[in-house]
Amino acid sequence: MRLTPVGVVRSPLTDAGEAPKQGDEGAPEAMIVLDEGFLPALDGVAPGQAVLVLTWLDRADREVLAVPPRSDRTRTLTGVFATRSPDRPNPIGLHRVEIVAVDGAELRVRHLEALDGTPVVDIKPVLGADPADR
Amino acid sequence: MRLTPVGVVRSPLTDAGEAPKQGDEGAPEAMIVLDEGFLPALDGVAPGQAVLVLTWLDRADREVLAVPPRSDRTRTLTGVFATRSPDRPNPIGLHRVEIVAVDGAELRVRHLEALDGTPVVDIKPVLGADPADR
Repeated sequence: MRLTPVGVVRSPLTDAGEAPKQGDEGAPEAMIVLDEGFLPALDGVAPGQAVLVLTWLDRADREVLAVPPRSDRTRTLTGVFATRSPDRPNPIGLHRVEIVAVDGAELRVRHLEALDGTPVVDIKPVLGADPADR
Repeated sequence: MRLTPVGVVRSPLTDAGEAPKQGDEGAPEAMIVLDEGFLPALDGVAPGQAVLVLTWLDRADREVLAVPPRSDRTRTLTGVFATRSPDRPNPIGLHRVEIVAVDGAELRVRHLEALDGTPVVDIKPVLGADPADR
């Protein structure tokens, strides 16, 4: 169960304290730069689509099992499986982004709150209402 | 970037050919049996909730970069990042399920199409409209 990075996030966000907690809370545009070898896996990914980007949150603490929601210490500790905290046993980030442009193996995206340098491990389409499109 | 299993899927589904392609296409009820050590991470997870279950699709082919959508060979090959194929460089399964019951470290869920024995690596809440609940 070992993950292979397929690319990396390039973003103006470099500090976890400054990053929005979710991508639709003010994340700047960012790039997903895939390794060229994965170019065939991008066939069918196009501007205007909403996709799910899975990342490896390499700055997370994997020993943490409970956190205050949204890092608000006035709130009761909650199990990490009931939160989106990056600190969790397997720190896989799940980000719903909108594709602005595709240039070879580089995707320009909106609403990605991952930090610069975060490894990308997968991209999946958002499931629509029509099973034929899944 | 090594994943640690936090639990396992227990399901009547044992054969990929018989499993529905998506959980809302007829998956039977299933159990997620977590290792007891992760019980604190479940605090706040309750019946009636919709959650995202992340699995490791251990029967997937990681060398595949393009597939016919929904295994329909009459359709044009598409990059795996534009499909939900289990065959992909990092075979992380993403399943939206509904929690029916919680009993200690065991969750009974609806709409999970993963096969019996599939390792579970993470559980995340579905993001709602209210950021305070995220």
